[in-house]
Amino acid sequence: MIKANDPKLKSWVEVPTQSDFPIQNLPFGIFKTKYLSPVAGVAIGNHVLDLVYLHEHGYLDGLGLPPGIFNQKYLNDFIALGRKKSRDVRERISELLRHDNDELRDNVAAREIALVPISEIQMLMPVRVPNYTDFYSSEEHATNVGSMFRDPKNALLPNWKHLPVGYHGRASSIVVSGTSIHRPKGQIKLPDLEQPVFSASRKMDFELEVAFIACGETKLGKSISTAEAENHIIGFVLFNDWSARDIQQWEYVPLGPFLGKNFGSTISPWIVTLDALEPFRVDGPEQNPEVLPYLKYSGAKNFDIALEVLLQPEGGDPVTISRSNFKYMYWNVNQQLAHHTVNGCNIQVGDMYASGTISGPSPGSYGSLLELTWNGSRPLQLNDHIQRSFIEDGDTLILRGHAERNGVRIGFGLCTGKILPAL
Amino acid sequence: MIKANDPKLKSWVEVPTQSDFPIQNLPFGIFKTKYLSPVAGVAIGNHVLDLVYLHEHGYLDGLGLPPGIFNQKYLNDFIALGRKKSRDVRERISELLRHDNDELRDNVAAREIALVPISEIQMLMPVRVPNYTDFYSSEEHATNVGSMFRDPKNALLPNWKHLPVGYHGRASSIVVSGTSIHRPKGQIKLPDLEQPVFSASRKMDFELEVAFIACGETKLGKSISTAEAENHIIGFVLFNDWSARDIQQWEYVPLGPFLGKNFGSTISPWIVTLDALEPFRVDGPEQNPEVLPYLKYSGAKNFDIALEVLLQPEGGDPVTISRSNFKYMYWNVNQQLAHHTVNGCNIQVGDMYASGTISGPSPGSYGSLLELTWNGSRPLQLNDHIQRSFIEDGDTLILRGHAERNGVRIGFGLCTGKILPAL
Repeated sequence: MIKANDPKLKSWVEVPTQSDFPIQNLPFGIFKTKYLSPVAGVAIGNHVLDLVYLHEHGYLDGLGLPPGIFNQKYLNDFIALGRKKSRDVRERISELLRHDNDELRDNVAAREIALVPISEIQMLMPVRVPNYTDFYSSEEHATNVGSMFRDPKNALLPNWKHLPVGYHGRASSIVVSGTSIHRPKGQIKLPDLEQPVFSASRKMDFELEVAFIACGETKLGKSISTAEAENHIIGFVLFNDWSARDIQQWEYVPLGPFLGKNFGSTISPWIVTLDALEPFRVDGPEQNPEVLPYLKYSGAKNFDIALEVLLQPEGGDPVTISRSNFKYMYWNVNQQLAHHTVNGCNIQVGDMYASGTISGPSPGSYGSLLELTWNGSRPLQLNDHIQRSFIEDGDTLILRGHAERNGVRIGFGLCTGKILPAL
Repeated sequence: MIKANDPKLKSWVEVPTQSDFPIQNLPFGIFKTKYLSPVAGVAIGNHVLDLVYLHEHGYLDGLGLPPGIFNQKYLNDFIALGRKKSRDVRERISELLRHDNDELRDNVAAREIALVPISEIQMLMPVRVPNYTDFYSSEEHATNVGSMFRDPKNALLPNWKHLPVGYHGRASSIVVSGTSIHRPKGQIKLPDLEQPVFSASRKMDFELEVAFIACGETKLGKSISTAEAENHIIGFVLFNDWSARDIQQWEYVPLGPFLGKNFGSTISPWIVTLDALEPFRVDGPEQNPEVLPYLKYSGAKNFDIALEVLLQPEGGDPVTISRSNFKYMYWNVNQQLAHHTVNGCNIQVGDMYASGTISGPSPGSYGSLLELTWNGSRPLQLNDHIQRSFIEDGDTLILRGHAERNGVRIGFGLCTGKILPAL
């Protein structure tokens, strides 16, 4: 049992009801203020705990942390210290924030500096991402897409139930929540024209995903087994794999998605640790046909994380358009990492591995507008005046996610992005 | 006219006939010796010029180079200074190495330290690669593959002549020439079995490619025109996109190549600059149908670079199995970069953009064993005793490339890799 996960723990820092960041969460991120350059922090309620301050003032002594480890633009060097080290730091922070611990609580001067109100900070990318892979691991999503574009009777391709299909994405264009993205331009093939045209995308979409971040580094040639996989995973972020469906459709055969995806992907800023999510493990779906030995695993490897997507038109209120859950994944992260490395492909610290769109079994749980509106043929009615087939300029997409049990809510914060007109 | 390209130039450093590195080349790389940590260097004949020594001892004064710019593990910071700065450095080095320049020539002590015999060094990766994209820009290659796996009458897919098809590859597993690679294992679907099996690849292949390296950084949302593209390209390396055809074939529909490719790619260690290749520009093939305006370009954007592939069985002599040329590319690098960024995808310094397999019009010029042996159906006879359908354990693949005119030969050095048995 990880002590920091005890549902009975309370913090002396006020944590509003329904906050994503109670003392049982303690996710890691990178923030800056008007006065501070980027540093590492931990979220608690409506505040961020400045890890540089804590480290420099002896609050983390005895943990064997290198000097300057938190005084960096990215968390890569910290998470490279491994799962055990990040767990030790989380345990120590949990101790410091407990209601009955006076070390920081009763040192008003220190507390005032170490605890920064969330309203005064800007969150940045938590890691530098050396490599990014996107999987395609929701059976419902793959079935919906296959039904729409191929054959409803044979919606899943022959390989789908034998391996977690994935492809390489673009690392450079992964941005942190709050970054606006211009509608991409590109080649589109309209059904009534022989030649493609150059146009701003007319089918802008989001994809609701969760990504894990690697904290390990392997040598070329080495494989990671499903049993070892979690030693190389620090935690999760929400991931919006923005997609221009019309650009994607014209370009993607035979080598896969390219410009339909690489104009931007948005992540939530806080790395919610695998440790904090321990209490929310659930069994995954039964896998039939039986998988090959290197993909077998034991234990509960899925996570019960409720996911929600809201669409907020310019000047309007956000409207929930999808409710899904990370537990629906057919392939779990252990299998994804084992598959990715079974051929000897090496991983690097900060690598991001996204799940693929997470669609649930019912239409209200689909993780993309492509599915929610069935390729635009059944527009969503957001309210009396507004409907959507795809994303329009000025729309903000908001992804949220949280796990909840015994009155404890482990949340991810927001993953938002606004679509601006094409340049 | 770039002065350093003058075919009449001779160096006081001995340059053997048929050397890839005459004074007109001067490619940049990263090397180390038994005594030195990795530093930047320039190749000349059978020597490497130590740029750290030159910089620290005033030989590069007046060029406005930051201190320590060459004393680094990678060239990223140097090439980030831009095309003009690298051209200035190359011009100055050309001057220092001219037969009639005595600055270094007659300073025996300095010369002995600054000029390191190639036999005493090890070449390393020239850049850290933040992003890697592989194009598919040879019409002959795409036609061969389409004929083999789809329909010989409609070998090219509808999008192929409208855009330079490309996909994202794995940056972590790009290694420098001389690195051995273990045969990958993975899922293979045998024609006579219903279920896939787990096996070492039985169809190991190479792909003959040339990659350009980006020296510019753009902001998300910005596009690069075909006219601007070369400002963002420092130069080229040879690129072997190792491919496990059987793994690739089972996995690649619908999201593209993944484990069939990401177990390793090999590059030659020297960045041959665009500046050095100026005299070897040639017109590309006529593009029909007409391309969209953002893909139009003017001037000679292809390069006449003779390419050669040799296969050396364990303990045997290398045998040439293909002779091709970079000039065969249907899509040029300006078009590739313009297309890649037309949707706002941002580029980063050190990014690698590979051409895709470079096949010529005749069977002897095909750039992969897949094509040379027509998917194994027509094995190559290497000599009286040895034939090959695909690569066998212990085989070394050697890629070479050079441009030649007026007695000047601009070469790339070797791009070699040996395939070891599966682990």
